[in-house]
Amino acid sequence: MKKYKIAFIGAGNVATHLSNELKKCGHEMVQVYSRTEESAKQLADSLHTTFTTSTETITKEADIYIVALKDSAVDQVLSKIGFGDKLLVHCSGSLPMSVLSQYAKNYGVFYPLQTFSKNRKVDFKQIPIFVEASSSENLNILEELANELSESVTILNSEKRKSLHIAAVFACNFANHCYAMAAKYLETKDLQFEILRPLIMETAQKVQELHPKDAQTGPAIRFDENIIKSHLSELKEMSDLQELYNSNSKSIFEHHQEKQ
Amino acid sequence: MKKYKIAFIGAGNVATHLSNELKKCGHEMVQVYSRTEESAKQLADSLHTTFTTSTETITKEADIYIVALKDSAVDQVLSKIGFGDKLLVHCSGSLPMSVLSQYAKNYGVFYPLQTFSKNRKVDFKQIPIFVEASSSENLNILEELANELSESVTILNSEKRKSLHIAAVFACNFANHCYAMAAKYLETKDLQFEILRPLIMETAQKVQELHPKDAQTGPAIRFDENIIKSHLSELKEMSDLQELYNSNSKSIFEHHQEKQ
Repeated sequence: MKKYKIAFIGAGNVATHLSNELKKCGHEMVQVYSRTEESAKQLADSLHTTFTTSTETITKEADIYIVALKDSAVDQVLSKIGFGDKLLVHCSGSLPMSVLSQYAKNYGVFYPLQTFSKNRKVDFKQIPIFVEASSSENLNILEELANELSESVTILNSEKRKSLHIAAVFACNFANHCYAMAAKYLETKDLQFEILRPLIMETAQKVQELHPKDAQTGPAIRFDENIIKSHLSELKEMSDLQELYNSNSKSIFEHHQEKQ
Repeated sequence: MKKYKIAFIGAGNVATHLSNELKKCGHEMVQVYSRTEESAKQLADSLHTTFTTSTETITKEADIYIVALKDSAVDQVLSKIGFGDKLLVHCSGSLPMSVLSQYAKNYGVFYPLQTFSKNRKVDFKQIPIFVEASSSENLNILEELANELSESVTILNSEKRKSLHIAAVFACNFANHCYAMAAKYLETKDLQFEILRPLIMETAQKVQELHPKDAQTGPAIRFDENIIKSHLSELKEMSDLQELYNSNSKSIFEHHQEKQ
């Protein structure tokens, strides 16, 4: 396998995990850029490489530039950098690949579908990676890189990747927010979030085999009006929770009235 | 350990799992009652016992009657049965123990905090069980039973149990509904739900160690307005999903503005 010189533009959760994993595979991390010095330095130190906070001093020496910034910062940062004929890649679920066409001749997308937190290890082999590129040569490079990291690599166009990202926001961010709301409520009642952990695991484990529609339980799907009313009344002093309880219960009930 | 004769009133998911587990521990399942013959027969057959669909022929021979009905059916069914001085127990998260006082002298609650689906095995040892009873003698019986089944047994009053149940609805039913909405959306885009399974597992695994507030990722917590707007616009033809996307994103953002 060819080993590449890679520069990271961005030093957040995705950049941290991806750069470390690529380094493990033998690629050389030549520089980290971030607008905040603390993040840039922290990631560069962990990779034993250099960092910069200025777009003007971004290295010319990399073969591949991987952009892992929040979407709204991408244009602002990239417009200040020249990439010549180097390969420019972003990791965003929702940005179309075409946003890169104005900054580079060779470009592509490398999207790992996972929730990354800095201090938490993940098994990259299990992470589905979705790639797309501006030419078949570039696609080959990204597919090879992805195959070094993961057992699940798929070529996917920008439109479908965006759909996948929307679904991931529901399945991950919104599911986690349900946990967070449960924790917030328990804390007002002097009960510990810990007690919910086996339930949360089983809820996720069930849908590893079942379709979520077949895995649903609880008062909303049974349309147990007494419970639902009594829960809503109990939540009357926490209007944010009450609103989420109401909209989710209605949505569950309606979803199960729809044709299978 | 004393072995009891137990009758089940109800033959749904909770009754199925709990009766089978109690039987494994050596207790005798003497009868199953359900309003629908199919459920009553199915559970009774699996327990090698008898069933009835008529409250008039409910056995007098049990030591303990365990009620696992939907909450709204409890009064209707119990008002037709005489329990004398037998121990009457319900498994509901939200019904207070006191609803049983008009039907029996000895009563209590046995609440396993888990999501049960009929054809799915669960490890009862890991399921937290919450008990409460009308006297210390009855409490001893229920604690002993619970300890035979699980490594996590807690005495909890009706008010706190209800709070726990509300939190469980968020952490389990609403989280599962997030998976269901993700699945529904992917199906309209010819993408498979399966692809989200590693993400769903990691989301649940993260909060086995982290507090959910520290585990959150995604566009809402970053307040990445471009993505949020573009996702909302993409969902314009699925108003149920659009509404949930909007309310969850707002709630995530507001939650992270609150003081830790």
